[in-house]
Amino acid sequence: MTNTLWAETFVDELARGGLQAVVIAPGSRSTPLTLAFAAHPAIRHYLHLDERSAAFFALGLALATTRPVALLCTSGTAGANYFPAIIEARMSQVPLLVLTSDRPPELRHSGANQTIDQVKLYGDQVLWGVDVALPEADAPAVALRNLRTLAARALATAAGLPPGPVHLNFPFRKPLEPALPHTPAFAPAGPPHTRTLRGQLLPTPNQIAELAALINQHERGLIVCGPRCEGGDFPAAVAALAQTSGYPLLADPLSGVRFGQAAAVGGYDTFLRGDGPGWPAPEVILRFGHLPVSKWLNEYLARQADARLVHVQASGVWADDSHRVDTFLQADGAATCRALAARLTPRPGSPWAAQVQATEAATWAALDRGLAGAPFFDGAVVADLLDLLPAGAQLLVGNSLPIRHVDQFGRPSGRERHVYGNRGASGIDGNLSTGLGLAAAAPQRPTVILVGDITFYHDMNGLLAVRQQQLRRVTVVLLNNNGGGIFRRLPIAGHEPPFTELFLTPHGLDFAPAGQLYGLAYQRITSRAAFRRHLAASLAGHTPTLLEAQTDGAADLGCLREVVG
Amino acid sequence: MTNTLWAETFVDELARGGLQAVVIAPGSRSTPLTLAFAAHPAIRHYLHLDERSAAFFALGLALATTRPVALLCTSGTAGANYFPAIIEARMSQVPLLVLTSDRPPELRHSGANQTIDQVKLYGDQVLWGVDVALPEADAPAVALRNLRTLAARALATAAGLPPGPVHLNFPFRKPLEPALPHTPAFAPAGPPHTRTLRGQLLPTPNQIAELAALINQHERGLIVCGPRCEGGDFPAAVAALAQTSGYPLLADPLSGVRFGQAAAVGGYDTFLRGDGPGWPAPEVILRFGHLPVSKWLNEYLARQADARLVHVQASGVWADDSHRVDTFLQADGAATCRALAARLTPRPGSPWAAQVQATEAATWAALDRGLAGAPFFDGAVVADLLDLLPAGAQLLVGNSLPIRHVDQFGRPSGRERHVYGNRGASGIDGNLSTGLGLAAAAPQRPTVILVGDITFYHDMNGLLAVRQQQLRRVTVVLLNNNGGGIFRRLPIAGHEPPFTELFLTPHGLDFAPAGQLYGLAYQRITSRAAFRRHLAASLAGHTPTLLEAQTDGAADLGCLREVVG
Repeated sequence: MTNTLWAETFVDELARGGLQAVVIAPGSRSTPLTLAFAAHPAIRHYLHLDERSAAFFALGLALATTRPVALLCTSGTAGANYFPAIIEARMSQVPLLVLTSDRPPELRHSGANQTIDQVKLYGDQVLWGVDVALPEADAPAVALRNLRTLAARALATAAGLPPGPVHLNFPFRKPLEPALPHTPAFAPAGPPHTRTLRGQLLPTPNQIAELAALINQHERGLIVCGPRCEGGDFPAAVAALAQTSGYPLLADPLSGVRFGQAAAVGGYDTFLRGDGPGWPAPEVILRFGHLPVSKWLNEYLARQADARLVHVQASGVWADDSHRVDTFLQADGAATCRALAARLTPRPGSPWAAQVQATEAATWAALDRGLAGAPFFDGAVVADLLDLLPAGAQLLVGNSLPIRHVDQFGRPSGRERHVYGNRGASGIDGNLSTGLGLAAAAPQRPTVILVGDITFYHDMNGLLAVRQQQLRRVTVVLLNNNGGGIFRRLPIAGHEPPFTELFLTPHGLDFAPAGQLYGLAYQRITSRAAFRRHLAASLAGHTPTLLEAQTDGAADLGCLREVVG
Repeated sequence: MTNTLWAETFVDELARGGLQAVVIAPGSRSTPLTLAFAAHPAIRHYLHLDERSAAFFALGLALATTRPVALLCTSGTAGANYFPAIIEARMSQVPLLVLTSDRPPELRHSGANQTIDQVKLYGDQVLWGVDVALPEADAPAVALRNLRTLAARALATAAGLPPGPVHLNFPFRKPLEPALPHTPAFAPAGPPHTRTLRGQLLPTPNQIAELAALINQHERGLIVCGPRCEGGDFPAAVAALAQTSGYPLLADPLSGVRFGQAAAVGGYDTFLRGDGPGWPAPEVILRFGHLPVSKWLNEYLARQADARLVHVQASGVWADDSHRVDTFLQADGAATCRALAARLTPRPGSPWAAQVQATEAATWAALDRGLAGAPFFDGAVVADLLDLLPAGAQLLVGNSLPIRHVDQFGRPSGRERHVYGNRGASGIDGNLSTGLGLAAAAPQRPTVILVGDITFYHDMNGLLAVRQQQLRRVTVVLLNNNGGGIFRRLPIAGHEPPFTELFLTPHGLDFAPAGQLYGLAYQRITSRAAFRRHLAASLAGHTPTLLEAQTDGAADLGCLREVVG
């Protein structure tokens, strides 16, 4: 019963520490932990058969809940399939607790079946990697206490500053099952053995005084909220800071600020194109979150050699690839915004702010005109999707073109929608599963997953979760232009051959069978009217749906230029 | 043109060093290398859209050709998807040259898009990991020479002792494309800048004298050929050694010896069950290759506490999880067998050998009787498959139950078939792609891929290669018993719940749409007669085919017991 006691002690402490979800992939070596998780009333388990998709599903759960989610698999390459999602979690600061099962010491490095070197398997990609002790029949009490502190500390590290993935590798020797009958030794309502607390990372009065003076001194400032800004009351606090300072708030589609704060500025991916607008240069740039999706915004910011550039990031994670930041402040974003706003001289009716807002308004008016007469192309599909997406809905935006379309056509609005994307590593892997993890976290909300065809193909296996988790309010919008459309935007497009074969990579896949395979209602879409009709029906309904918009990749870029003007 | 010169120099040297194949996944950062590979006349490129499948496809190519195969991908998590195949390559000693593309130093650790820490990405799982220098506009000549020695040494390490995966990480700064028009600077027929040679690892006369004396001294010996024995003339040499010594040759289905040497002994997975046969204990065990697939054989060998256990493995890789080996000899297997045979006193008509052969013959006779009246179950399908598989065919056997069925029902024969399986890490990932890599290496031969349903599901994406590589002589035999049948054989089967939900994991997938999606002729099979008919047609034809044998997982174990007796 040693393995069982070991696993139950660890799982019990995880539950006491607040863990609520585990994604399990089937396997034998993990039996002690699988049984303990399955038996624990406070932890919900999700089964997935493909560990790569499972890990991205867990990532989606953790994104939606902002709580650590556990992953469990057997020994061997099972855990290697977690690697892409672990890296995304590391780069996006998503709390994951990765539990791999391993063989006992005598089977390691021995050529034993399904036995690989799992110690530090994920190298530098995890925040913490521990090879857990082998369960002992006569373990001293401190060993069991260690299991509890390990559970507590693993959760605290995964949800730390920064949050991210933690790896615990558990060796087990056979027998892996308890004798029957067996009653697990849980105390579901018990307090943790170890509580891990953390203070608030508040800016000091001196730091605030200095930044407030900077803002008071310079009228022409910009606030830039990149992806993965803090949640909670940060969006309201940063909007209030923008209002008081008269600094326009440029909000990335993944910032959590654009779709919920009507005062945010979008459209910049259009109006900052090329040499940018004719404005005077900004004097102060105040950044939150990661690097924005918009290439044009990033290039514009990188050109501001004379501006003061301040980056505030509670996680302490660096995000400045032009190396222009002069002040990096690791502090709570909402608290910093509130403290700053309180020290500012308000700038009502700032001409600078009015100039930016007028540019933005003109941009949306032009895009509206362009879209009104636009044919069926990717950009129009995305604009229609954003138009129809109701308040409270979740949207997972795939890499690589969809997120750029959402950036370009996503108008700021007070209608709050929860928009996510895997922009830590910006991979095309696991996007469907991430969206299904979001859906599983809030099955009552409509969840839309917007992806291109190669992204869809890459993670098709993830769709198994639709049926297995009975996710009814999921709509997958597949923009199928038969290949990697983003490459048409790059200089390589002029190199034919091998452009079409090795970059554009048309595959000719018809995805209707994928809907059939995984139990999604499938609809092929070839017009905007049909898209709007089917999307509206799916958003209102309870049938998981795959809407495949078949667009013309070759014409798409032309349409876009036509619309953008 | 710096990137282009860098990439072309490296690729040119790879070609001069003998590289013939690269599997490319699309991406932007890899553009310089993609263009160089595409332009090189001596290197064939294969495109794949899913890096996980791509890497297993490359593994299959390398297995079939026993030559290094290169992999190329862009920056970010693309390379992380290679991880499962890299680990399998490491554990199975398959030469892979993994080329990841990376961002230049100023974008690393900066939050830049699609930029992760790729230095030593695969940790201890590769034989060698190098972060290649950034291309320089005015590089000294030694830097370009270094690129050539790097290519030569990477190939030599991948094909070394042991063979395995090597990782080179290439940073590139934009622009990634050469100016047009461009003519690559290859000299396809040129000699390598650096030749890497290796001597022969021959046993010394003293080592041979000692082992020959041991064999001459003891009549009761066994030769055990596990998976991944040497190819070439090893099978003939070990068969000759068995003949001379009178030591029965127990040959694993993945040894390369069972299906090509009529004198090999199989059936042991049946006749060594439980306490084993009533023979006296063997005095000498001479092992080659990895640990055998058969649990019963391994347990039998582990019980032979008084036997001398000698393991000969040219790669130097340890394979003894019962820690019984008393002598490990790193030396060429064929040379060792030949040298030993020359020093032995022949034992024609050895009663010990006759006893083992009689046991084996009785086993096959009993299995034949059992199978003659057996219903449609996994074991019968596998027996029929092995019966019909023609000489020269390739067979990829999936984990976890199929390889055990092949072990049990695969009768030794002089009809040479090439049987492979990913038993390094024994994962269920990438099995289809490995088989398709085999097929691509020898498209004129029939290739059969035998997998269970969870294994099939896990790597369905890999089937894209069927159409993309125009593989016509591929037959996928899918044993669909709706879940992880192997768990029925384990003690966990008595723990219901959660046995069915979390271990057996029935998924209810109907795989007909998978055939449709990837362009395989699909046939659902529910009888042995139909299986034999459709398999024979597919083996003789040129249409890629998916034969889904729908068997009853619950009945399967009973049928097996009935047949095995």
